[in-house]
Amino acid sequence: MKIFEYSKIKPTMFDNEEMKSVAGRVIIGKNDGAKNFCMRIFEIAPGGFTRKHTHEWEHEMFVHAGKGEFLGNGKWNSAKAGDAVFVPMNEEHQIRNTGEDLLVVICLVPSNAPEL
Amino acid sequence: MKIFEYSKIKPTMFDNEEMKSVAGRVIIGKNDGAKNFCMRIFEIAPGGFTRKHTHEWEHEMFVHAGKGEFLGNGKWNSAKAGDAVFVPMNEEHQIRNTGEDLLVVICLVPSNAPEL
Repeated sequence: MKIFEYSKIKPTMFDNEEMKSVAGRVIIGKNDGAKNFCMRIFEIAPGGFTRKHTHEWEHEMFVHAGKGEFLGNGKWNSAKAGDAVFVPMNEEHQIRNTGEDLLVVICLVPSNAPEL
Repeated sequence: MKIFEYSKIKPTMFDNEEMKSVAGRVIIGKNDGAKNFCMRIFEIAPGGFTRKHTHEWEHEMFVHAGKGEFLGNGKWNSAKAGDAVFVPMNEEHQIRNTGEDLLVVICLVPSNAPEL
């Protein structure tokens, strides 16, 4: 068993035209012996957003803290801490932080997806 | 895309000698079209605990709220909101709430495991 504070993992920072003020971390992945799926956490600062994209794998997400909007079903949908989000494969999606606090999203992908 | 407050899902209550004061929910699973892995959430009331057990699949867990102890590596380990927990396949594990608030644990399993 491994137990650790997620924020102790060094983040990869994304800050460009497509992806603004995002810190990404692989929390549990292949390096830990997790062969079936991978847990990542994205911290999105107020005003920040992830990249709008589509891919051939699903996301299972959970909002741990903050609030924001998720693009899905062709529109922006509000979400807050305590909300779960399922993105089926091949659906265009994006996340933006519309709140005043850090938006912390747990996001899992299957093993055929890139870990970060 | 599906977005919903996890607590709106009707829980399955576990309250017996092996598992005390636990509310379990399948958050994202096969019924949603999620074929590779399943997100569940367990709420454990103060003094409550899950069943001590072992199985041939891994857990990827995240403590969303509260604090407690996780049995793993043959001992009890403290964990709190913001901590991630990885339980490899075939390792004996259990969770108990040693705090004064609800312990909320996100727990994911691969598709070959029972959803709840």
